[in-house]
Amino acid sequence: MQQSRFGFSEVSKRTPESPISYFMQQAVENQDIISLAAGLVDTGSLPVQEISSALNDILGDPTKAREALQYGTTQGHLPLREKIAKHLASLDKSSTTFSPKDIVVTTGSQQLLYILSEVLIDEGDIVITEAPSYFVYQAVLAGRGAEVVSIPMDEEGMQIHALEERLKQIEAAGNLPRIKIIYTVDYYQNPSGRTLSLARRKELMALMNRWSNRLRAVIVEDAAYRELRFDGPDIPSLKSMDPENKFVVYAGTFSKPCSPGLKSGYALMPTELVRPILIIKANHDFGSSNLTQHTVDRLLENGDYQKHVLELQEVYGKKSRVMLEALESNFAAYPEVTWTKPTGGMFVWLKLPEHISTGLQSEFLKAAMSEGVLYVPGIFAYRGAGPLPDSEMRITYGDASVDRIREGIHRLKKAYLRVKDTKPAPARTASSPKPALV
Amino acid sequence: MQQSRFGFSEVSKRTPESPISYFMQQAVENQDIISLAAGLVDTGSLPVQEISSALNDILGDPTKAREALQYGTTQGHLPLREKIAKHLASLDKSSTTFSPKDIVVTTGSQQLLYILSEVLIDEGDIVITEAPSYFVYQAVLAGRGAEVVSIPMDEEGMQIHALEERLKQIEAAGNLPRIKIIYTVDYYQNPSGRTLSLARRKELMALMNRWSNRLRAVIVEDAAYRELRFDGPDIPSLKSMDPENKFVVYAGTFSKPCSPGLKSGYALMPTELVRPILIIKANHDFGSSNLTQHTVDRLLENGDYQKHVLELQEVYGKKSRVMLEALESNFAAYPEVTWTKPTGGMFVWLKLPEHISTGLQSEFLKAAMSEGVLYVPGIFAYRGAGPLPDSEMRITYGDASVDRIREGIHRLKKAYLRVKDTKPAPARTASSPKPALV
Repeated sequence: MQQSRFGFSEVSKRTPESPISYFMQQAVENQDIISLAAGLVDTGSLPVQEISSALNDILGDPTKAREALQYGTTQGHLPLREKIAKHLASLDKSSTTFSPKDIVVTTGSQQLLYILSEVLIDEGDIVITEAPSYFVYQAVLAGRGAEVVSIPMDEEGMQIHALEERLKQIEAAGNLPRIKIIYTVDYYQNPSGRTLSLARRKELMALMNRWSNRLRAVIVEDAAYRELRFDGPDIPSLKSMDPENKFVVYAGTFSKPCSPGLKSGYALMPTELVRPILIIKANHDFGSSNLTQHTVDRLLENGDYQKHVLELQEVYGKKSRVMLEALESNFAAYPEVTWTKPTGGMFVWLKLPEHISTGLQSEFLKAAMSEGVLYVPGIFAYRGAGPLPDSEMRITYGDASVDRIREGIHRLKKAYLRVKDTKPAPARTASSPKPALV
Repeated sequence: MQQSRFGFSEVSKRTPESPISYFMQQAVENQDIISLAAGLVDTGSLPVQEISSALNDILGDPTKAREALQYGTTQGHLPLREKIAKHLASLDKSSTTFSPKDIVVTTGSQQLLYILSEVLIDEGDIVITEAPSYFVYQAVLAGRGAEVVSIPMDEEGMQIHALEERLKQIEAAGNLPRIKIIYTVDYYQNPSGRTLSLARRKELMALMNRWSNRLRAVIVEDAAYRELRFDGPDIPSLKSMDPENKFVVYAGTFSKPCSPGLKSGYALMPTELVRPILIIKANHDFGSSNLTQHTVDRLLENGDYQKHVLELQEVYGKKSRVMLEALESNFAAYPEVTWTKPTGGMFVWLKLPEHISTGLQSEFLKAAMSEGVLYVPGIFAYRGAGPLPDSEMRITYGDASVDRIREGIHRLKKAYLRVKDTKPAPARTASSPKPALV
């Protein structure tokens, strides 16, 4: 941009291009490549009839139709917020009640992540994330100039004792007030597929209570994949463990469990965050598409949403089993290759031996492209100063057919065999996706 | 917010609450009050059948349906961008061709204004606007920490010689590189109803060419009301006078000429701005609702959009005549009260004598509320250091019925009669809407 006639802002200069845009583009443009990269949802099961029927109900009623096609409020359609409040309570199977006044409807949950970050983060503020963490949110944080502190995960999710150690270090350095957000994708995480266990949830909330006098941070519980549970226990939300509505912003979406084309999401948050969020959202768009809000409202009302989620649990359960079986049969002979076993959502996290880079310039990516399979390099999910893990990758069974999942994993193995005996590459010291994508 | 457990960002602290949110809420909640304030569109003419039919076409075709309900690209549905390019060329009746590659589809044109401002403006940068100017964009600029330089308008719109004088002053102070945006709502301006004349357009583009070696600013041509022309000449866009696509970002919307509930807008911009805009937009939402984009695409394809615009021109033409006649008959005896006479769009700008404040704390607003009529205080449309005009107001015939327009203007007169002989209030020195709205 140095040659530009225009002077770009610091936000613009700091924000890296999302690798996902690139991979989605690749997947759309080249049908021969099997994309296990793009986070598209399963196309075949999109609720065409249900949405069509909801829209006919709305547009067939002159009063409802005109309401849906007019401007709505910035906070979102009240009947929808009421239904979301009930829906969340039912997911938690608890007696907790949530207030529609604490809910904001957004243009997908991504918009909530963006606006909340605008509202809380100044340059140099600290955000705590899991390692690995969601790529696109990492890019948002880079744009805001946030310092990212990442906490290691294991099979139970974020390690809360490690989190507390970091809090102590940050406090000792006098920087505790700079911590603004603790971000967790706590169900079937994007990118790793892991879930924060019930025990860890309790530990995290106990920590928040212990630190509440001096820690100003809010927990962002990104529950985008929560409803796509096909196995394992039905774990209550962090939000349900926050009875005074003090600590947790719960970010939900209708993209994953219903349709991304509606681009409708929502968040349930501590009351005092609502107004600052709405002031910024009014400047973004005065409120998300009213027609798609009414559509989701109708789907929740007539029960088609709830039925569809059950169907999706079957669909993704089956596809995950296909992918895990294919990984088992292709990589059983190579125990140095490991992967996570999700019980919901759309993602598997695959680790190659440490000397094999999966990055954009890597031999392995070249081999994979040449075999005709795409993944998301794991390095995008890490940020920080030290050498970053560079031999991992996110793969998804979201949109690929079962045949293409099987073939895609087979191609991954062929790519692996091409490079597995290469010598170790020099260590990477920081992720810098931008130049590589230009 | 001082008592908050959370630490809010500078962006949050700087951003004032939009007065429009407040007035929309009032209008929605109290049906007895006649709102000439809220910028809603005419409800009765919303294209219910056309949108219903477009959605049935899309959702009745399994391939199209699944495409519309899946994720799309961040830049927007390519067939829609192609149609927008053609549509804009047809509006200008010129041989100019526009490229879909330079078009980004957004969540209403408001989102474009927001993202472009993020991409270009750092705290302390300068944005040049008309005086008065669009309220909500003023709030966006406050959030970015921009310094707003406002240029007086007359019946031909922004005074270009005054703009050039200010450029010279800013250059003399060494601040020319800080000017990032020249913002104009150049058709039937929100809030004043005025249009930038053809002569002034030519002057502005000549100025841009003259200054192009040293001025880095982009013109933002906010053409939200352009297609709602019911009288006066059909004036070409600034964009059409920018054959090398160097100077002008054209921001358009389907909210005003079609349906706000779709929340679909677009911008045509210099090529080098596209990528920075998309990088930020990817972090906001990865792309606006795909379903509403497909809906607009279908309406442009089958011609229903174009037919509907012709119908709306009739509707708003009639309502504007009703409002102007009501103003004439109610205020003919009070020549100290003046107003603009729009030839398109939805707004009239009314001026009371200078000693009568129309602000949120004013006697006049209290009188108007007590008579049962709402307007938007003019002071929200001004920013700057000196005493700001405080006796003006925006009124709209957008959504009110003709009977309510007549009654609303009559109530405005009654409010005026209540306060017209009060003594002058002390001069206001700055607009500070936020505390007043709390």
